[in-house]
Order: sequence, then C-alpha cells, then structure tokens
Amino acid sequence: MTYKSTDIKNIIAEILEAKKDVGGVKSLYFVGCGGSLGALYPAKTFMEKECGNLKSALISSNEFVHSTPKDFGKNSIVCLSCHKGNTPETIAAAKMGKEMGASVILLTWLPESEIIEFGDYVILYSFDASPDHLAGDIDYAGEKTMCALLVAVETLNQTAGYESYDKFMDGVGMITTVIRNARAHVAERAAAFAQEYKDDSVIYTMGSGASYGAAYMESICIFMEMQWLDSSSIHTGEFFHGPFEITDANRPFMIQISEGSTRVLDERALRFLRTYAKRIEVLDAKELGLSVIDASVVDYFNHSLFNNVYPIYNHQLAEARKHPLPTRRYMWKVEY
Amino acid sequence: MTYKSTDIKNIIAEILEAKKDVGGVKSLYFVGCGGSLGALYPAKTFMEKECGNLKSALISSNEFVHSTPKDFGKNSIVCLSCHKGNTPETIAAAKMGKEMGASVILLTWLPESEIIEFGDYVILYSFDASPDHLAGDIDYAGEKTMCALLVAVETLNQTAGYESYDKFMDGVGMITTVIRNARAHVAERAAAFAQEYKDDSVIYTMGSGASYGAAYMESICIFMEMQWLDSSSIHTGEFFHGPFEITDANRPFMIQISEGSTRVLDERALRFLRTYAKRIEVLDAKELGLSVIDASVVDYFNHSLFNNVYPIYNHQLAEARKHPLPTRRYMWKVEY
Repeated sequence: MTYKSTDIKNIIAEILEAKKDVGGVKSLYFVGCGGSLGALYPAKTFMEKECGNLKSALISSNEFVHSTPKDFGKNSIVCLSCHKGNTPETIAAAKMGKEMGASVILLTWLPESEIIEFGDYVILYSFDASPDHLAGDIDYAGEKTMCALLVAVETLNQTAGYESYDKFMDGVGMITTVIRNARAHVAERAAAFAQEYKDDSVIYTMGSGASYGAAYMESICIFMEMQWLDSSSIHTGEFFHGPFEITDANRPFMIQISEGSTRVLDERALRFLRTYAKRIEVLDAKELGLSVIDASVVDYFNHSLFNNVYPIYNHQLAEARKHPLPTRRYMWKVEY
Repeated sequence: MTYKSTDIKNIIAEILEAKKDVGGVKSLYFVGCGGSLGALYPAKTFMEKECGNLKSALISSNEFVHSTPKDFGKNSIVCLSCHKGNTPETIAAAKMGKEMGASVILLTWLPESEIIEFGDYVILYSFDASPDHLAGDIDYAGEKTMCALLVAVETLNQTAGYESYDKFMDGVGMITTVIRNARAHVAERAAAFAQEYKDDSVIYTMGSGASYGAAYMESICIFMEMQWLDSSSIHTGEFFHGPFEITDANRPFMIQISEGSTRVLDERALRFLRTYAKRIEVLDAKELGLSVIDASVVDYFNHSLFNNVYPIYNHQLAEARKHPLPTRRYMWKVEY
C-alpha cells in the first residue's frame, strides 16, 4: 500500500501509537544520497531548530549503513528518500532499518521498485518528470522536500507540540502558487544568465539555513553532474572565514537570499560580492514572493522555492552550452 | 581563570552538578566559523553516533545567533571555538549563550581576548604557531579538535556512560606520536605533490565520517583562502551521486582514506578515481600509522591525523606556487 503527503499526519500517529509498547519514539533519522540527501536538508534544519525532545540527524545512506548511530533501532523512525527506489546504498539503509525494528518511511516516486519491500510506509511524492522539469504543473506541496518536512513537523507536533503548526500548514497550502509565479518571473533573466555564463568552467552556489540544501543540490546535481562544471556550495555564514578569498571579478556566484531568520547572513555575503565580484546571479526569496508565508515558518519554504526556480536557469544553461542535462559519462553507464 | 584539555573531565562534572538545579543538561551545541567550525566536526559526529540521550548539533556561529535552536538555554552546554578570540560572530554566539543561561565553554588559543569574558570555562588549546605549522613540537592531544571531542566524550560518559571511554583515552595518549611519525613519513611525497599540482587552478578534497571536517578545512582554509584555488570538499559517500561526473584525467583529487567504520566508503571512491582519474593524492590513515588506536574509537582520531599531515603538503605547495600561506586580499584587510 502506498500513501501521499497528505497521509503523513496519520502515519506518524500510527507509528507513535505502535511504538508505545517499546518505549516510544526517541530519534528521527533522515537518510538519502546526493539530491535525495539535499532534499531532506530542510527537515534536518527544522528538527535542529524547533525540536528539543527527540534526537535527529541527516546522514548520507552509505555512512548510515557503515557507521550507524548506536541508538538507532526500535525507538527510531528513519525517513529515507530514494527517487526511483534503486539506489543500492539507500536500499541497504532501508533494509537495515527494517531489520533493526525502526519504523521505515520511504519517500519515492515510483510505486514499484526494489526498495518498496523495506518500507513500513511508502509515500509517493509528486515530481515534475517533464524534460528539464519545465512543465511546472505539479503539486509542489507534495514533493519529497515537503514530505520530509511534514514527517518532522508531525513528529514534533504529535510529541511535544509545535506552536506554529497551523502557520506551517498555511504555508504548505501557498507554496505551489508561489513557485509557479516565481518560475515565470525568472524566465527572462535565466536566458540572460545562460548567455553570460555559458563559457565558464566554474560556478559557485551560496545559501544558508534550511535552504542550504538547495544550494548543495544545484552544485552537485546540476553544475557538477549534469554540466561537468567545477563547483561548490558555500554557506553564506562560512564565506567570510575562508572561501571569500577566491572572490574576483571573474568567478561567478549564484546566491540564494532566503526569506526568514538567516536572510541577514545572505545579505551580508551579497554586499561583499557586489563590492568585489562582478558576476553574480541573485535568487531573492522576497522578490520571488515567498513573504506571503508567515515569518514564523517561512525559513522552511525557501528550499522548495529555490530548488524549483533553478530548473528554469538550468534548462537555459544546458541549451546555451549545448550540453543536455541528461548527459552522463559514468552514472548508470559504468560499474562503480 | 583558564583551563587545559586535561581539565575537561572536571569541567563537565562541575557543569552537570550545577545544572541539576535547573533540570539537568539536555543539549550540547558546537559553534564556530570556518576552520574553527571544521575542527568541531569530529565532536558532532561523535554525538551523532554514540549519544542517544542528549540533543547535539554543529552550527556556524552567525546562523546560531540568528536562527537559534528553540531549546537552547539553561539546559544547554555550548562549546565554541575561536582561535584568537576576536571573531565577531562567535563572540556574539558566546555572549548570547551567557545571556540565555547556557554553560559556555570556550576553546581558544590566546589567554586574553574579547571573547574571554563570555566564557564560563576558557580552555587554552595547543597550537603549532610556527611558520606554516611546520615545527611539529606541540602536544596534538591538546588541540581544539581533541578538546571538543573530550567535551563530547566526557558529557556522554558522565550522563549515560560511554563503554569505550578507556579506549578513547588510550587513543588520546597515542595521537601525538602517530601524527609526528606521519608528518615525517609524507615529507618526500609532499614535495612531489607540490611540483605536480603547482599550476592547477582547482583541487578537490575528499573524506567521510568524523574526518570529513578535515577535508572541509583543507578545502576552504588552505586551497580557497590561502592559495586562491577553486575547491570543494566532497563526501566520499556522496561522490557517486553527482560530483563524480566531473572526474577526468586532469582534475586533481586529494582523498583521505580513513581508518575505521567509513573506510569502505573512501576505498570505493578511490577505486573509481584510480580507474577514471589520473591525478590523485592519497592520505591513508592506515599507512600513516593510525591503526594502533583501538577500532572502537579510531574513527574519531582520523581528523587530527589528516589535519596535521596537510601542513606538510601546504607548505610545499605554497613554496612551489610562490604564494605564501599568509597572503590575503580581503581577510583582516577590508571591511566585510
């Protein structure tokens, strides 16, 4: 049986009820690889900031399997993300979770895959499967990032309570419209971006807070994986403690200006870039319409916004570079 | 009054005793910026893997100040690292800790600095202050990384108990000799490395587990900050989920092969590099003598080893590139 994002409230209630017999839920782990790890980053940040009563961590699948937290087991929930259900490291992590008596929540896109048998709950997330993710006609509130966030939000709310729960759910109801408008809003500048940066060999991404994961995904999944560009995702708070020394008039930076509590970090980095760099692409969540979501919860919605605005840029960049996004030289092609 | 790493056992005992009146210690935060954040990474990993009874997180100073965990306060310990005690973001974090009633442990190098007044306990760590950190005559067991680890180990051991405590302390007693031998061991290859890579514009670092922080520090503090090279630290478990598509015969990778539970991740990445890359520098903790430390705790000592072997390479690289390590264009020179 499979579920949707809207079932997460009931799933968590069922798990919490079932776990009463073994001492309750004491930890919540988020596990995945690459883009599927980055997508869980907002949930990790949510637990870190909002939740004091449960242990939580975000761990890459193979590290989770080989260096498993000692407390992981019957008092744990593990929420894994696996796009097509065939990533060996994440399958191993799900299997281990099942064997060790944890409640296993799988976030995946396909109803049938290798990983399915190891999930106590299989949540099918929404995903824009059109070429270069350009269709934009999906329910963004049902994407994997939002599913993982809802696992965190429901777990906190149903254990210790979450005072901004209603505001968060209001945000879930608004995010799809915000994203659609934002994607249309950047269309023209994305084409200009592609022309400006098509001959570069390195592009940095920058971000902070709950949206750092979106900067990580853009760097490793698009620039490195799909465009073979050198890249790194720089935390805007870390920028001034090392990385900023590479700044010059030539190096390109794509910087996320989040709406919410870490905006001040991003704005500081942008001020520096405007002074010493010349080639900067700014994604500003405020300009992109995210401020309609309540300030108490807006931090957690930046990632979904940025992560869905990037495809507009990525498509244009790939066209301008004549390097289609699906091009690979190793992934799924050689043994590794 | 200032303390040393050997006082940490008593410091934690005193904090735990004092906190009984307010409900005990429930969380342990590690906070710093750049290299001082990376140095705390093993402590973060230790808490994640070994400790189930306390909340813990590693957060960059300015994010900690502007997006503070809701549970942070009188039931918290915050352990901050600040090399010369003058980093504004970390001073702000320490001040906030003091105001909010947390126990503030400061790890610093100088006995007198701006940050000192905000520390309940000021631990002076050992540091090789010689040019390019080449002297190698310090007590490596007293460095900031090991101090932070000891804060974690003592907090766990004095609350829930830590079964490998004695093995860990044995490791602390061995690490200085291991590091000194390893630094001598790489001298020749470091010179060859410098000649090979002196004309490159990008160098990647790679690592996993508790030593990922050392790869992060080498990337942001040395290659980016002190050599103005493009760089990123790639987690060896994440490599196959995006970053590996940039691999070719020209791009240089400096890869840490840890001893311990995540070694299998590093070895897998190395096998791939040996097949598809041609320019690889390997730091292997096993070859460098770390295996004398017990397998139950060895994970946590990789970082100190790698972090102290890098300076031998860094010095040679800086010489070959005629770009002295202290060179800066922005840090401490312009307003930011």
